[in-house]
Amino acid sequence: MTRLKSISYDELEVGTTGSFSKTLGERDIVLYAETSGDNNPLHFDEDYASQTMFKGRIAHGMWSAGLISTCIGTVMPGPGSIYMGQALVFKFPVKIGDTLTATLTVKQKLEKRKSVVIDCQVRNQDGKLVVCGDAKVIPPSLSAEIEVPKLPLIQIDGLE
Amino acid sequence: MTRLKSISYDELEVGTTGSFSKTLGERDIVLYAETSGDNNPLHFDEDYASQTMFKGRIAHGMWSAGLISTCIGTVMPGPGSIYMGQALVFKFPVKIGDTLTATLTVKQKLEKRKSVVIDCQVRNQDGKLVVCGDAKVIPPSLSAEIEVPKLPLIQIDGLE
Repeated sequence: MTRLKSISYDELEVGTTGSFSKTLGERDIVLYAETSGDNNPLHFDEDYASQTMFKGRIAHGMWSAGLISTCIGTVMPGPGSIYMGQALVFKFPVKIGDTLTATLTVKQKLEKRKSVVIDCQVRNQDGKLVVCGDAKVIPPSLSAEIEVPKLPLIQIDGLE
Repeated sequence: MTRLKSISYDELEVGTTGSFSKTLGERDIVLYAETSGDNNPLHFDEDYASQTMFKGRIAHGMWSAGLISTCIGTVMPGPGSIYMGQALVFKFPVKIGDTLTATLTVKQKLEKRKSVVIDCQVRNQDGKLVVCGDAKVIPPSLSAEIEVPKLPLIQIDGLE
């Protein structure tokens, strides 16, 4: 994908959907911990994590929730959206190798502020609900197509 | 900090607080985009971002919200906590160089599930509220002191 398309408020309908998928790699856990400062051993120390109710290392819950935000900012409604709020319920843990899909569906259009309420569900490869909750977003007033910025290469010691 | 201390449900009181601070670097935006897949140009392309209502590049909203999660997982209640849910209201944009502080305060103890409701506020260096909302957390049943895992070095092309 080299360009992102946004969907304007007028183009969105109740029922409009969008989705974004990503598979959790070791790399993603390390990068999330570094950027967030969250080095809780539950995400890194298999010995420690295996003694918890999760029986092993899991992703940061906010990493999974972030896929909702990614879907809003890059898929539906896409660039130009203003993110007003998000409810999150964490339902199921995520392990390395899990493929998550955030599926977003417009459930309400609020004319007054030209905002939308979006139902958000993140499920794993088995269809198990991982995170869910409503988002409140002001979509762009005009749709547009925008070039995707190229990100610099990132190397992690000891990882591919 | 080489060890993390957790606070058990019994030790927490209404009014118990904890905080976590971080300054947003270019590096953090790149790492967050890479791990989340969110390459919305609002976070990277100054020309594009300067034409939006934000008048320049801003952090991903979920990056700022993530500091709440970091505070829960590493400060209060700390490791062993189970993150049940989070409400988020995005109030104010964050620019590179801003120092954010997430301040969490226990507002309710729910005996039935031994869970707590935590008021969460993330403010910038000027005291401006950036993100807020309640978290629902099951704190560990016993307090503990746990060694912080060492994360691998990360290098980004063209950045210090």
